[in-house]
Amino acid sequence: MPTVMIYWSPGRTEKQKAEVVHEITEALVKHGGARREDVLIIFQNIEPGDSARAGHIQQPPGAKAASDKP
Amino acid sequence: MPTVMIYWSPGRTEKQKAEVVHEITEALVKHGGARREDVLIIFQNIEPGDSARAGHIQQPPGAKAASDKP
Amino acid sequence: MPTVMIYWSPGRTEKQKAEVVHEITEALVKHGGARREDVLIIFQNIEPGDSARAGHIQQPPGAKAASDKP
Amino acid sequence: MPTVMIYWSPGRTEKQKAEVVHEITEALVKHGGARREDVLIIFQNIEPGDSARAGHIQQPPGAKAASDKP
Amino acid sequence: MPTVMIYWSPGRTEKQKAEVVHEITEALVKHGGARREDVLIIFQNIEPGDSARAGHIQQPPGAKAASDKP
Amino acid sequence: MPTVMIYWSPGRTEKQKAEVVHEITEALVKHGGARREDVLIIFQNIEPGDSARAGHIQQPPGAKAASDKP
Repeated sequence: MPTVMIYWSPGRTEKQKAEVVHEITEALVKHGGARREDVLIIFQNIEPGDSARAGHIQQPPGAKAASDKP
Repeated sequence: MPTVMIYWSPGRTEKQKAEVVHEITEALVKHGGARREDVLIIFQNIEPGDSARAGHIQQPPGAKAASDKP
Repeated sequence: MPTVMIYWSPGRTEKQKAEVVHEITEALVKHGGARREDVLIIFQNIEPGDSARAGHIQQPPGAKAASDKP
Repeated sequence: MPTVMIYWSPGRTEKQKAEVVHEITEALVKHGGARREDVLIIFQNIEPGDSARAGHIQQPPGAKAASDKP
Repeated sequence: MPTVMIYWSPGRTEKQKAEVVHEITEALVKHGGARREDVLIIFQNIEPGDSARAGHIQQPPGAKAASDKP
Repeated sequence: MPTVMIYWSPGRTEKQKAEVVHEITEALVKHGGARREDVLIIFQNIEPGDSARAGHIQQPPGAKAASDKP
């Protein structure tokens, strides 16, 4: 540990992931007292139709509302 | 928060997901004292071959048992 | 499955939890095609100082801002 | 419960999964005091590009370093 | 990885945990192709009142039913 | 989303948590394309006796080994 799980929508480039990984790892080392080699980060890609806030499923860009669909 | 992670098998329609989201959100608002805009729900789709109960991997409907199981 | 993890702040009564459990279970049975006996719900109680949104740690009611503290 | 989530890279055969499931279930029954029918195991397959240790994203076998990519 | 999260009720002794850790680690090394030093196991202790199956909150041994409580 | 779960050992000060939260949030906004108000971070405090690597349970600082280990 620390073990970090990040749930987000898919589509980030490898470069974006590498930068996020770098900065989170440094934050945990510098401010969280972690050893760098102990920091594990796992990205979990959640499709837009698989998350909801405030009772509404998030739609992918350009999608019609869920209520229109079977 | 509340943040809700639901691990289930894939295959629900958007309509089913929308209804599940609606009812879980209402339950957390009405009975759990949550603010609607704070309720986040994430569905994680687990393929049948990736879950097990009582020592046995679940098979997809109609699948034959893994004939090479010990 | 379905297995449901609910991350929220502590302090709900047993009655509140029982109602939330009842309604979520029914939602998954009625709308999600789940068998009632397969629905597992786990509550994870996250203290206010252990969650953050938009870059700010949530404070317990009446607490001073984090920046005042060592 | 016990509910077990295993985050690993994809690619295990059904036979490997069946053996892992069998041994983890037996360990929880024999040493953890669990009832066999209560042990639920879920595998979550994390692609190599979606996990990182010590600040570096894991690359799939034979891949070039992330820094070479857009 | 593999990273293993085990959600169970509290109360296991250190000896029980050590045995469970030993056997799960060996299972992942022998059958899952993992390197021993990569296997991380995290126990999450869930109080009986914080889990439910089939719509009913699990009660600690000797407890009265939830419906009797405020 | 993004929703971030951080599993680590307890004992960080509020100031440490605030700094970790700040830097992770900024990393996700600057490099991950997230909106600041959508970033949720949850810390899960795992006691040393509740995590293990490479088959060995981590001991708290100064602790003796569980003398009854197999």
